[in-house]
Amino acid sequence: MKHLIDIGDLTRDEIIGLMDEADRFREALDGREIKKLPTLRGRTIFTLFYENSTRTRSSFETAGKWMSADVINVSASSSSVKKGESLKDTAATLAAVGADAIIMRHPASGAAQLLTQWLPETSIINAGDGQHQHPTQALLDAVTMRQHIGDVAGKKVLIVGDILHSRVARSNVDLLSTLGAEVVLVAPPTLLPTGVEHWPATVSYDFDAEIDGGESGTKPDVVMMLRVQAERMQGGFFPSHREYATLYGLSGQRADRLQANALIMHPGPMLRGMEINYAVADRDNAVVLGQVSNGVYTRMAVLFTLLASGRDGQEGVQL
Amino acid sequence: MKHLIDIGDLTRDEIIGLMDEADRFREALDGREIKKLPTLRGRTIFTLFYENSTRTRSSFETAGKWMSADVINVSASSSSVKKGESLKDTAATLAAVGADAIIMRHPASGAAQLLTQWLPETSIINAGDGQHQHPTQALLDAVTMRQHIGDVAGKKVLIVGDILHSRVARSNVDLLSTLGAEVVLVAPPTLLPTGVEHWPATVSYDFDAEIDGGESGTKPDVVMMLRVQAERMQGGFFPSHREYATLYGLSGQRADRLQANALIMHPGPMLRGMEINYAVADRDNAVVLGQVSNGVYTRMAVLFTLLASGRDGQEGVQL
Amino acid sequence: MKHLIDIGDLTRDEIIGLMDEADRFREALDGREIKKLPTLRGRTIFTLFYENSTRTRSSFETAGKWMSADVINVSASSSSVKKGESLKDTAATLAAVGADAIIMRHPASGAAQLLTQWLPETSIINAGDGQHQHPTQALLDAVTMRQHIGDVAGKKVLIVGDILHSRVARSNVDLLSTLGAEVVLVAPPTLLPTGVEHWPATVSYDFDAEIDGGESGTKPDVVMMLRVQAERMQGGFFPSHREYATLYGLSGQRADRLQANALIMHPGPMLRGMEINYAVADRDNAVVLGQVSNGVYTRMAVLFTLLASGRDGQEGVQL
Repeated sequence: MKHLIDIGDLTRDEIIGLMDEADRFREALDGREIKKLPTLRGRTIFTLFYENSTRTRSSFETAGKWMSADVINVSASSSSVKKGESLKDTAATLAAVGADAIIMRHPASGAAQLLTQWLPETSIINAGDGQHQHPTQALLDAVTMRQHIGDVAGKKVLIVGDILHSRVARSNVDLLSTLGAEVVLVAPPTLLPTGVEHWPATVSYDFDAEIDGGESGTKPDVVMMLRVQAERMQGGFFPSHREYATLYGLSGQRADRLQANALIMHPGPMLRGMEINYAVADRDNAVVLGQVSNGVYTRMAVLFTLLASGRDGQEGVQL
Repeated sequence: MKHLIDIGDLTRDEIIGLMDEADRFREALDGREIKKLPTLRGRTIFTLFYENSTRTRSSFETAGKWMSADVINVSASSSSVKKGESLKDTAATLAAVGADAIIMRHPASGAAQLLTQWLPETSIINAGDGQHQHPTQALLDAVTMRQHIGDVAGKKVLIVGDILHSRVARSNVDLLSTLGAEVVLVAPPTLLPTGVEHWPATVSYDFDAEIDGGESGTKPDVVMMLRVQAERMQGGFFPSHREYATLYGLSGQRADRLQANALIMHPGPMLRGMEINYAVADRDNAVVLGQVSNGVYTRMAVLFTLLASGRDGQEGVQL
Repeated sequence: MKHLIDIGDLTRDEIIGLMDEADRFREALDGREIKKLPTLRGRTIFTLFYENSTRTRSSFETAGKWMSADVINVSASSSSVKKGESLKDTAATLAAVGADAIIMRHPASGAAQLLTQWLPETSIINAGDGQHQHPTQALLDAVTMRQHIGDVAGKKVLIVGDILHSRVARSNVDLLSTLGAEVVLVAPPTLLPTGVEHWPATVSYDFDAEIDGGESGTKPDVVMMLRVQAERMQGGFFPSHREYATLYGLSGQRADRLQANALIMHPGPMLRGMEINYAVADRDNAVVLGQVSNGVYTRMAVLFTLLASGRDGQEGVQL
């Protein structure tokens, strides 16, 4: 594996291999006072973010540093982009500076894929491209599900909210269906993309019905709430914020009707009171912060797999 | 000691312990070509700055790196704050990413204190919260005083200027009074906070009189000038800049009337010509840059004390 | 050598010494999986950028990190500059924090030189000051020329485009003339500085004539295209973009008329279609990315020479 662009590029075995590697990193480091492995010493990783992000950028930076890589951050606001340089030349420049990997977030769907064509020698990691894919998010979500409720196959996962603008939803649908989970997308018609009927998932407009099991009567094992990406709304947004919270927010009452061990997930940043009730986000079965922690281990697994696993005798976890 | 939020939380012994530790770091590193200790290897420190700062952020970053910690910077302008995330969730996310310590500067007084309630497992260091506290500044000031004029107890310290908006003043008054120094606050009535009469300090509007010894006739051992925080002035600002400089600036003539070894201090950034005469800031007894240098050693002491001193057999300074 | 401000400060031997050191770093690291030397462990390097830059800042950061230095970035937008602090005090603060070297980019010509007067103990590296100098760029250009076409002495180099605003041009003219190359400046009269007739170079307005050998009939060995710095244009800009591309752009036809092994160079960021034809920039004899790669090795050589070469028994390349 040279790049990580799209969950759809991965086989089931590759997905499970990355998840297993993430588990190994968690087992090796979680709760340890000293979190430092020599795995990527002398390797150079650039983050190239054209959109702001706290959690994703700092999660990758932490993952790289815990493996002793040199991590160098480039943000679009301070980059040559402003001087008119093309994405191709910016990325080629970072590769020529010495990047072993470029971790890119970009507002245009497909941008990361283009980099792999231009820079076949440099590992490209898609940290979110437009409304297309955010593969490490889907991987860390699956790692978190498996940690708490075991094998994902056969589980029922509701993905709720702004499906239209969500690369998280697209990546999760791809990954979960590959692993054999049943995915139900719950959203107002205005926040569903064209062609969603061809996705390997069923669609519902009725959150309450799905909380209670939907047509099959099987209650969900996971309820994954999405962020409402108001900044991507073009023109009006219907339903209104109040209607949205009423119809598609995870209220306390809805959370009460879930199975006791059903997971409540959110990729963050959360808008409490909008997508999710303030207190519900802190319940024991809400694993939002567990997702964040697994994010670091998952990104360590990805960086290790792309940059180091080909080396002779190299093992992922070394203390 | 788990957090450092407010000088008022510390006992006299804790303050002196941190100052002693800072001295030990200075003795170990000052003038050395190689400044690198293994003390915090494998520990992860986040800076989370909601206000800009050159000296404080880079001082903490240097302190962490010299002790081999991984230091990751997050600025509010590039953070999820813009997407509507709460401070609580932003901080909890950094803790979940793996932060052993979060060093936060925030415009709201009390913000750092809140973090300690939300994140009891993560060491929180207040790098300035609104007009409330900036504890490492007071510590480094005391370290600098002791370095140059010995025990702070019994010394007379003038703190001059914009007391109203100054967390530096509040922190210094707390620390200096705890150590037994005599503090005189010198400011125009418009730049003094309500309730200042209850502070453990005397108040004067007359800088010239205090330079010459004030009521007691004892000349000051230290004159600490404060930055005029024009950006915090709401509505008008009286006196005018010219009046301010005339009445409350440390002119050459005023500096000449000090005792020869009296220290001239300023937390920076200085507005030369406003708070302090251009040339006075470069006099031999002006220790502004010494404050900066001690800032790194003081922050090393704080990070060491919060993160490492509990370890068996761990000593602060190891080469 | 304590500082690097201006190519004109260097002797021919010093220039060649730096170039040789850059070659040694390239030989030691190029193509290696692990790029990490202990050379500057425990040394602290600040970048202080008052203008945005991807390639220069990240190139210096990479150079420092590959030599195990602590590298701390400060950008003007987040610095005390906004609070009214002078350049002198900002720089003195970084030195007091512990900077062994300050790498500065500043819009004012001469700014870096001032720092050397204020901070004689700290190594100052000019990463571009206004329209004046960008010495590491000229060094990396010479390293790249020598790598591909051998000794620079006696070679003919065209420097084409916006000479007026270009610190790259000034630095290259100084360096190339010192090494004995023949330099021809090709530009419209509106983009040539006053006094250019006193530079150690000849001037031509006719790119086509120079491509074909000019007065002497000797075809160029190197064609160095410059970025059109539209952001520095005050008032009108003549010729227009279209005219500029027509008259002074490196078109495919012009590139075809060069000697087969003539180098095509550009300091980046390139405006393809303006200064250089889109496809020409990717030709085999276009070494734009080679310049970028050599940039890191050249900056390693500079940092090593300024910070480490004085140590007993210290050698530049250690693995």
